[in-house]
Amino acid sequence: MTALPPGSTIGILGGGQLGRMLAMAAARLGLRSHIFAPEADSPAFGVAAERTLASYDDHKALLAFAQSIDVATYEFENIPVPTVEFLSKHVPVRPGAKALACAQDRINEKALARTLGAGTAEFDQVNSFADLQKALQHIPPPCVLKTRRFGYDGKGQAKILKLDDARLAWDAMRDQPSILESFVNFQLEVSVIAARSLDGEFRAFDVTENEHRNHILHRSLAPARITNAAAAEAIAIAEKFATTLDYVGVFAIEFFALHETGRDVLYVNEMAPRVHNSGHWTIDGAVTSQFEQHIRAVAGWPLGSTAMKAASAEMINLIGDDILAWEQIAAEPGACLHHYGKREARPGRKMGHVNRVMGKVPG
Amino acid sequence: MTALPPGSTIGILGGGQLGRMLAMAAARLGLRSHIFAPEADSPAFGVAAERTLASYDDHKALLAFAQSIDVATYEFENIPVPTVEFLSKHVPVRPGAKALACAQDRINEKALARTLGAGTAEFDQVNSFADLQKALQHIPPPCVLKTRRFGYDGKGQAKILKLDDARLAWDAMRDQPSILESFVNFQLEVSVIAARSLDGEFRAFDVTENEHRNHILHRSLAPARITNAAAAEAIAIAEKFATTLDYVGVFAIEFFALHETGRDVLYVNEMAPRVHNSGHWTIDGAVTSQFEQHIRAVAGWPLGSTAMKAASAEMINLIGDDILAWEQIAAEPGACLHHYGKREARPGRKMGHVNRVMGKVPG
Repeated sequence: MTALPPGSTIGILGGGQLGRMLAMAAARLGLRSHIFAPEADSPAFGVAAERTLASYDDHKALLAFAQSIDVATYEFENIPVPTVEFLSKHVPVRPGAKALACAQDRINEKALARTLGAGTAEFDQVNSFADLQKALQHIPPPCVLKTRRFGYDGKGQAKILKLDDARLAWDAMRDQPSILESFVNFQLEVSVIAARSLDGEFRAFDVTENEHRNHILHRSLAPARITNAAAAEAIAIAEKFATTLDYVGVFAIEFFALHETGRDVLYVNEMAPRVHNSGHWTIDGAVTSQFEQHIRAVAGWPLGSTAMKAASAEMINLIGDDILAWEQIAAEPGACLHHYGKREARPGRKMGHVNRVMGKVPG
Repeated sequence: MTALPPGSTIGILGGGQLGRMLAMAAARLGLRSHIFAPEADSPAFGVAAERTLASYDDHKALLAFAQSIDVATYEFENIPVPTVEFLSKHVPVRPGAKALACAQDRINEKALARTLGAGTAEFDQVNSFADLQKALQHIPPPCVLKTRRFGYDGKGQAKILKLDDARLAWDAMRDQPSILESFVNFQLEVSVIAARSLDGEFRAFDVTENEHRNHILHRSLAPARITNAAAAEAIAIAEKFATTLDYVGVFAIEFFALHETGRDVLYVNEMAPRVHNSGHWTIDGAVTSQFEQHIRAVAGWPLGSTAMKAASAEMINLIGDDILAWEQIAAEPGACLHHYGKREARPGRKMGHVNRVMGKVPG
């Protein structure tokens, strides 16, 4: 394994807040960033050494991008696979196409979880209304119909609470290949943020507990309030995923946790082959942030310490107009404000977050 | 007081590692940076939204710079005063010309310290060899001759250990206005890194203990191993400086500490009107880094918490070839590597630093 020396350039596909925080983490290590994104007002452009404004199918721009960088990575899993395949011919892309193919398809994701011995909701593939009616016989309501691909923040999902809801749910999928999942009556959502290095080392941060509002992450808390055994199991499942996928970089696995008699039962919900919103607390709460960890992994560096810097850490997302409170948050002792520099605070848009670390740090 | 909202642009004169870390801190808060620097390979260019490559006396470039930013600041005190005066006509410059004038002249600096009731070495101004001979009568060797202006990292200094050294010392000043200082036989060098906000609030980080090698900072440790009374006195002196100079931003005051019976005596050595190398530990060891604190102050924001995140924090500078150890440091548990992205590791050049926080964080 040869680590890319400082001065090397990390190519990042995607210019949102994740790309922005990746570029900032790279800069700390003396690595340059080249952001490739199709939106002129991409938040990551303002912190990167190089910027390419082009669409993901612009092969001329992709070629020039590939020739200017030492390794490529991406900030989100909905990057078109042909883009990654094209880049891969010219420069290493980490994580690789295998991880992307898995994460882009909810059926593959859940099938892999099962193969690795992990629990999941019951599921079946649905490609037509007839398929849905058939699937509902062994996965009765309440259940959830989701598109297999391109879902995030609750988009491309429809609940089926009674059989009569089936038609409306199928129409909402707009004929896309879909998956029917049994409804899991969980007490807690938790996630593992972990990394695997180029030479196969694996490290996980403390398991994080997540609270969603309107299908968007609202609050994360680390460590999660689950048993030590469940935390160890979640991390073990994450390690199996990473090994099986030959993974390089940071990824997240979201779980549903069900308190049953004497133990917490875990169901894999989904896997994200990238840095993850529920890992933002690591910027202020861990020795190495998830962003630095990802850059270390894709640059072939040794992984950093995932130890917590405090007894506990909390992250609250600032969604839409929440960001208007920036001045109050800036004045709050111990609050660490992160503002993504986006101009327009549209409803549901992630505008920033605030970290609060507790324990060592006095109010 | 009106705080500049996120999306505003901070203009930074100087593109070295301090400008780089200031720009990175601004980005965290959603503020844009425009770096103005005369060197094409300025480390700060790679992390800023806007860059101007021009010399400090290029008024056309300075005017365009002023028109593109909401406030200007600088990363080092040797910015030509006419540059700052020119900019001040078009845009607020923080800290202001008053602080710069004080810090650029060792006589002003020490005279102000005395006015504020603080101790300093004995000193006298020296503009000729005759002045030097006269001054040596009441400030006998061992003593130090220094240029009044533009000294840093031991540059522009000559020790006078015996009267015979006087000629050589004066020649080394190259006819520049100089200052003769009595040699202070200190046990410890400490510094206060503090900030004053636009509406006059003052906050200091824990006093830092500094160890130099070859006149360049080698290691900082916070909190400094001095008595609580001495720490409180050092911070009180810093506050007086800030108030008297109408200061806005982060600054450093370096002190010599002499252990005398029952107490530590402090002598003001010098004042730097900017973020300071001995405050780099705050990036990983304090709730707010000195860089974010400076950006908050110059942007008119409330100051952040200066509380430590750990029981103690250590910073080691990576000078010249020290940087070749980057890969070992990256692999060390708990070490936080900061690499400035400079291409050439010349002897004496500050290439990066490593922070280690102790206490809460396990090895």
